[in-house]
Amino acid sequence: MNLKIVLRSLGMLLACECITLLVPLVTALIYGDGDFSAFLMTMVALLIIAIPLMLVKPKDQNIYPKEGFTIVALGWLLISFFGAFPFYLSGAIPSFVDAFFESSSGFTTTGSTILNEIQSLPHGILLWRSFTHWVGGMGILVLTIAILPSMGMGSMQVMKAESPGPIVGKIVPRLGASAKILYSIYLGLTVILTILLMLAGMNFYDALLHAFGTLGTGGFSNKNLSVAAFDSALIDGIVTTFMILSGINFSLYYFVLKGNLKTFWKDQELRLYLFILSAATVLIMVNLLFTGYYTSVGTAFRYTSFQVASVMTTTGYATADYNLWPMFSQILLLTIMFIGGCAGSTGGGIKVIRFFIAFKSIMCSFKRIIHPNACYVVRLNGKKIDNQTVQGVTSYFFVYFLVFFAGVIIISLNNFDAATTISSVIGTLNNIGPGIEMVGPMGNFSQFNDLSKITFSLLMIIGRVELYPLLLLLIPELWKKN
Amino acid sequence: MNLKIVLRSLGMLLACECITLLVPLVTALIYGDGDFSAFLMTMVALLIIAIPLMLVKPKDQNIYPKEGFTIVALGWLLISFFGAFPFYLSGAIPSFVDAFFESSSGFTTTGSTILNEIQSLPHGILLWRSFTHWVGGMGILVLTIAILPSMGMGSMQVMKAESPGPIVGKIVPRLGASAKILYSIYLGLTVILTILLMLAGMNFYDALLHAFGTLGTGGFSNKNLSVAAFDSALIDGIVTTFMILSGINFSLYYFVLKGNLKTFWKDQELRLYLFILSAATVLIMVNLLFTGYYTSVGTAFRYTSFQVASVMTTTGYATADYNLWPMFSQILLLTIMFIGGCAGSTGGGIKVIRFFIAFKSIMCSFKRIIHPNACYVVRLNGKKIDNQTVQGVTSYFFVYFLVFFAGVIIISLNNFDAATTISSVIGTLNNIGPGIEMVGPMGNFSQFNDLSKITFSLLMIIGRVELYPLLLLLIPELWKKN
Repeated sequence: MNLKIVLRSLGMLLACECITLLVPLVTALIYGDGDFSAFLMTMVALLIIAIPLMLVKPKDQNIYPKEGFTIVALGWLLISFFGAFPFYLSGAIPSFVDAFFESSSGFTTTGSTILNEIQSLPHGILLWRSFTHWVGGMGILVLTIAILPSMGMGSMQVMKAESPGPIVGKIVPRLGASAKILYSIYLGLTVILTILLMLAGMNFYDALLHAFGTLGTGGFSNKNLSVAAFDSALIDGIVTTFMILSGINFSLYYFVLKGNLKTFWKDQELRLYLFILSAATVLIMVNLLFTGYYTSVGTAFRYTSFQVASVMTTTGYATADYNLWPMFSQILLLTIMFIGGCAGSTGGGIKVIRFFIAFKSIMCSFKRIIHPNACYVVRLNGKKIDNQTVQGVTSYFFVYFLVFFAGVIIISLNNFDAATTISSVIGTLNNIGPGIEMVGPMGNFSQFNDLSKITFSLLMIIGRVELYPLLLLLIPELWKKN
Repeated sequence: MNLKIVLRSLGMLLACECITLLVPLVTALIYGDGDFSAFLMTMVALLIIAIPLMLVKPKDQNIYPKEGFTIVALGWLLISFFGAFPFYLSGAIPSFVDAFFESSSGFTTTGSTILNEIQSLPHGILLWRSFTHWVGGMGILVLTIAILPSMGMGSMQVMKAESPGPIVGKIVPRLGASAKILYSIYLGLTVILTILLMLAGMNFYDALLHAFGTLGTGGFSNKNLSVAAFDSALIDGIVTTFMILSGINFSLYYFVLKGNLKTFWKDQELRLYLFILSAATVLIMVNLLFTGYYTSVGTAFRYTSFQVASVMTTTGYATADYNLWPMFSQILLLTIMFIGGCAGSTGGGIKVIRFFIAFKSIMCSFKRIIHPNACYVVRLNGKKIDNQTVQGVTSYFFVYFLVFFAGVIIISLNNFDAATTISSVIGTLNNIGPGIEMVGPMGNFSQFNDLSKITFSLLMIIGRVELYPLLLLLIPELWKKN
């Protein structure tokens, strides 16, 4: 392990977090709610740690996969840790464990909260809470690569380890330029959504916070009732549309910008994603109308499409209490929670592409039983997927369920009901936010013990960085000298 | 597809089922409860169908993998279908769908029941119900290979497709002899258990039925209260021991009989299986004692070891209502339900060996990240596991969860609570029997609609034959002429 390059990269990351804190700092200055000093102190603390780390001079400038994974794992733990400072120092969240939970939930775009009362908090704090979604959504290391000079040869390994999905490609040859393009698209969509929400009746502050929460597929709102507080079909529709857009691979938007609409529409992952979204919406609508839960098709469509988009993109906003829906609808929501968004989007979950590749690989193995001498390969968008990637994808499901069961076992020590215990782990590991029962769309995570809150925080980070980086830290061989 | 060899093999299978019906036929004759004619009619029906099928003369005598899978898939559907006849014709189960459920549950050694009242049924019927566990436990096609002349060249493909676990080997060079040895060991253990249960106070009939239910890891009892009806710590202890023995690879007993104890004790799957059983027992005991559910260590050990063994070996007998246990204990039971028994045992679930291989393969992939140029391989008992087997194992988890979610979605149409909906699918797909809530150890499956009962029957069969054979039937290419 080349510890020096890891330390220097972490220094750059913390410096980048310090820069992002300028946004809530300015907000706190404008509103004057008394949270200004909390941000200032956090920024000073970050600089004191970041500057010496950035001055570390590694002999070997190369970042290999193991360093890439380590930077991502430690990086996400550190930004969540320091991101908790403003909540704690301002007194908004009196327990540091709770503040760490809220910060992890923010950066990982989960949106689970331990707060019972949201609206009375200072403006700067609520903005920071939502802004962490935005920063974490596209990846804070990708942001670091975009705004700071290169970490070293092979920063691609860092981007690979942080980006969602089994296959990561640069859009343009230079990595820094790729990161800049991704963030520009992301920023552009955020500006458009903010304007649309203002046109639909929100003030600038509310619109900005909900744009952060939507584009990052996070789900934090500054209203106790979440998006339902605005009670507007227009706002629901806008948010639904942008949640769906945020669950799409952002690289595809680059093709759209370049006028290459064919590549966009022919993308097999996108097609499967839109198919699942539509199928789930139709099935749940039929179920809700058939059981008399809603009587008008319009109302059913409004609430179903919102909840389906929110759950599948793992945003976690709610406009209806799906706890009360018939079991068939609840189970369909649960199923798409696991699927999640597309690779390269800001959505969480297992990702549509993994289901696509694993399913295709299973079909190949069935065909091999029927014709043992024929050769079958898995293809995505016409390109052959190599065996190692396929093996990685199927293994992912196994590791996923190991982590899932480990999480459920720890959380069961609270002795809450089975639905709360299991769905709280689903909600955090998949970076969705709410689950059902006690942690349903109208509940929160305040009643769990501290061990559980730390476990949830780790599950959120493990889920966001797609399992491997944090688990790798547990392998003793990683820490041996070369 | 060589349909002729499939038809002839199915004929042999049905003839074998006809022979097994002699056991309840004789019982019905002895007790004279009026169920004799139901067995006779079923046997006649089986012969009428089996004889012409057995006379089919295939041009090509070779059984290739696709025919092996097809024989197993159709075979298990057919024996469950005809196995339902005695229940239906005797009037013991008035609905044929219910009878099919009970028969599938018997042969697959699941032990889920739609019966509310068991004790009042005829002796022959209850014996048949438990005997199906015994016949299905070691595999009815293995039984056919053991007692009837060879199906054709490559019957090994049939045994491979039916036997639990990713790796199947013959114990001795000749397949028929291997099958005979396995069934002799199985029979021997059944005789020993029957005698022990009689010494512990059961009458011959009760002892025999519970020996069938235990050795087959089935779980049907002829008592409404299951094993708890005998309320004997000695019986509980004997059943616990034999459930654990039934969850072990039966090939290992052959080594014991040959005096090769070292191979037995050094088996890595066996060690992991015993470790998980012990760890779960200790953790649950501590939880139950700590929360004051039990106050005596002896009582806690008696009930915990029984329930843990019953759930992990997927037997499904109950002496305590674990619905009432603390959530931590319930979640641990749920976790080991998925793990299941060893390969080559009569237990269900995903199998210990798959967890072993998948876990080792993950560790290899972690090490490959750390040392990209080193070569890591998965070993079991010192032997290298080839890549295709490893890939098959990790894919298995994916297919497993696809089937699981498909099942849960269909069952959710009953609109029962989430715990019932989900645990009923876990209980049937893993061939355990009970789940929690409505289908808990003191409940049953009578309240589900017919679509659900057929789905459960299919899930039980899919689980017993380890997913692939039944799913393969859905691939159109299987049915094309060569």
